[in-house]
Amino acid sequence: MPVRLHAPALLPCDRDSECTVVRDAALDIDAAGRIGYAGPRADAPSPSGATVIELSGILLPGLINAHAHSPMTVLRGMGGDLPLLRWLREVIWPAEARMGPADIRAGMVLGSVEMLRHGVTTSAEMYFQGEQVVDAVLATGARIVLGCPIIDLPGMDWRAMIAEVDRWIDADGVRFGPGDRIEIGYGPHSAYMLPEEALRHTAESAVERGALMQVHVAEARDEDENQRQGHGSVPKLLAAAGMLDGRVLAAHCVHMSDEDIALFADRGVGIAHCPGSNAKLASGIAPLTNLRAAGINVGLGTDGPASNDDLDLWHEVQLAAMLARLSTRDSTALSADEALLMATRGGAAALGRDDVRVLEPGRWADLVHVDLDDPTFAGGIDVPDEQLLANLVWGAGSRRVRDVWVAGDQVVAAAEPTKVDRAEAQAVVRSAGARVRV
Amino acid sequence: MPVRLHAPALLPCDRDSECTVVRDAALDIDAAGRIGYAGPRADAPSPSGATVIELSGILLPGLINAHAHSPMTVLRGMGGDLPLLRWLREVIWPAEARMGPADIRAGMVLGSVEMLRHGVTTSAEMYFQGEQVVDAVLATGARIVLGCPIIDLPGMDWRAMIAEVDRWIDADGVRFGPGDRIEIGYGPHSAYMLPEEALRHTAESAVERGALMQVHVAEARDEDENQRQGHGSVPKLLAAAGMLDGRVLAAHCVHMSDEDIALFADRGVGIAHCPGSNAKLASGIAPLTNLRAAGINVGLGTDGPASNDDLDLWHEVQLAAMLARLSTRDSTALSADEALLMATRGGAAALGRDDVRVLEPGRWADLVHVDLDDPTFAGGIDVPDEQLLANLVWGAGSRRVRDVWVAGDQVVAAAEPTKVDRAEAQAVVRSAGARVRV
Repeated sequence: MPVRLHAPALLPCDRDSECTVVRDAALDIDAAGRIGYAGPRADAPSPSGATVIELSGILLPGLINAHAHSPMTVLRGMGGDLPLLRWLREVIWPAEARMGPADIRAGMVLGSVEMLRHGVTTSAEMYFQGEQVVDAVLATGARIVLGCPIIDLPGMDWRAMIAEVDRWIDADGVRFGPGDRIEIGYGPHSAYMLPEEALRHTAESAVERGALMQVHVAEARDEDENQRQGHGSVPKLLAAAGMLDGRVLAAHCVHMSDEDIALFADRGVGIAHCPGSNAKLASGIAPLTNLRAAGINVGLGTDGPASNDDLDLWHEVQLAAMLARLSTRDSTALSADEALLMATRGGAAALGRDDVRVLEPGRWADLVHVDLDDPTFAGGIDVPDEQLLANLVWGAGSRRVRDVWVAGDQVVAAAEPTKVDRAEAQAVVRSAGARVRV
Repeated sequence: MPVRLHAPALLPCDRDSECTVVRDAALDIDAAGRIGYAGPRADAPSPSGATVIELSGILLPGLINAHAHSPMTVLRGMGGDLPLLRWLREVIWPAEARMGPADIRAGMVLGSVEMLRHGVTTSAEMYFQGEQVVDAVLATGARIVLGCPIIDLPGMDWRAMIAEVDRWIDADGVRFGPGDRIEIGYGPHSAYMLPEEALRHTAESAVERGALMQVHVAEARDEDENQRQGHGSVPKLLAAAGMLDGRVLAAHCVHMSDEDIALFADRGVGIAHCPGSNAKLASGIAPLTNLRAAGINVGLGTDGPASNDDLDLWHEVQLAAMLARLSTRDSTALSADEALLMATRGGAAALGRDDVRVLEPGRWADLVHVDLDDPTFAGGIDVPDEQLLANLVWGAGSRRVRDVWVAGDQVVAAAEPTKVDRAEAQAVVRSAGARVRV
């Protein structure tokens, strides 16, 4: 059934560097879950037959988390602040090895609920047991772009892992599910966890099927130094392996030369910038201003909840702006607008998902409603546009996300998920965590 | 009437570099608002005659915002992301000039409510119309350490400003109000906004009265360069003016030489580290690791809500850890524990307030209760201590502050202020903002 939303302010997010604000706006969701109209209420068609919902705040596109390993909600906080390698070897990897399919599903349900409550409608995920991950997201109502891990570790066979994704895509297609909510692709972990031959095989499979490849690139300083000795750089290695002939989403990209940046720009690689994870783990600050200046599509990612630890993409929006300003010594390096647009259309472009990047007719109705019941919004709705945007980005952010729709389906109402029970999702993860903790 | 609190976990925050967790804890508040007992419930005295309250989560000391200009909630977001000097000259200063006493009171009420809801019980404030600021805080129930501004601007007379603070302290004392909730001191703005003579006069008045001096130090790069030419450095100028003979709280301290750090350490100067403001305005990253290694008491501050823009000190806790790690390239540079302790006992020590820095008998009962009803706390209360602390600091933070006490008086219950009406406080600030906006 069609739905008409009325909102005092709407951010279509239809430009790359400026958020226009449409006042006294209307948005129509058609019976298929797509946007029929988005614009001034005065110009809207008659809402004949539609259910009319009056919203009190700001309507904007659903945020896109461009890099996550969300099932790791089960492991969140384990080991505390141990040094990275001890933390991985003594705590995270042993616990992860104990996670069974049901634990992964439970972790993904909770991660998905958490993201939806923060207004994140799409996440790019890289995690094992893809069918469990997909099943979880079908349950919560979120949208997912899954990179099925391809990795070279004892007991794992990268050839078999690639072949399994091939079969899945050949059976179900790259996109499927209600509202194209599920997208399946390849997750070749990284150049340091795979031989070049595996990258080449992955590229062949992915290019043939038009599937996205999600890969970690140049996250740690020493990783990059190793690759420089062998191949010049990680981006050059990916190019040599044929990966850049296909759709690539590169996560992190902290240690990039000008040549690397030019290469990624030239080949249309999308980047998931993860400022919080890179800061917490002391990986460094990605050269965001240069990446953007080169014309690369850059989205924002939280990384996994075991390492970041909060799946709140609004924090990444703020951090992206703060770290860009610090590293360039320029307080105008990235505005609040631009940072928010990275979390919406920027992420969609990096994922190659034109169907969700902006609020305009024909796109899926992935929507977030933020109300203003917070001291940081004390100015109210009738303030100049730049103040409303500053209050949204620097102030209330995720705290006031009230309602969320994915492909026109309301998945969060009054800040709680509509499809699953949050308390139950938390309880299942609690018992899973207690069981796998080492 | 005495109160007994029972909590499954209590953080006394009684050490400088490690948060111990007391499980199954009890805390007694005596009739005067001081802590009578804090420790294991099994060892607690009989709660005879006390009202017993069962809490579900974590009890910790109230957070201390070591640097704020909270009445500027009225101006929050105005001008958006204009370059700093245009923002000040075209938007903030003209609007600020229109703020009357009632607007300042309204802005402080709302800022105070916002901070209390985030678990901040004490704030170090620097703002005009001190009597209005104090009146606002008496209304909300918070604790304040006010630095009355001393500044050299057209139409302002720094001699008269000092004399006014002298008279106030001579009449009311340095600390007054229920539970010593009000502390009055001097706010010599900075070395660049005052002649050396004014710093000297302020120091004489403050030392004589044992009052705190709050001052901005080495926030911007060019500010520091100017001072270096004239005096060697800002810290050396403050020493020459006699300020370091008294109690000094220095905000920012971004651009500090090793000599400056040694000088502040030697003279017992406290520092308010403001990582969010310094990042957003591209001022730089303060050398936190060196400041702490020198033995300086460092607290955390939000700075004013016009520039940061959120008075959520939990963000500063996270940022302090992230930026310390980035700037040292060491993921163990500042642990979650240590960052949280900076927001509690570190801030109290920087302000010279031994009466609130820790949960132990004899201190004022300034308390925060954080419940666990959040996906980031899915592990529950029965996880190892380091996981509980990681979940608290990196996860739910301010989102789950439920109850707050100041000097034993409950000022927040179920996340809403008990003494003032939040909706009304927001409405008053809305109309003030609309009137003063240029």
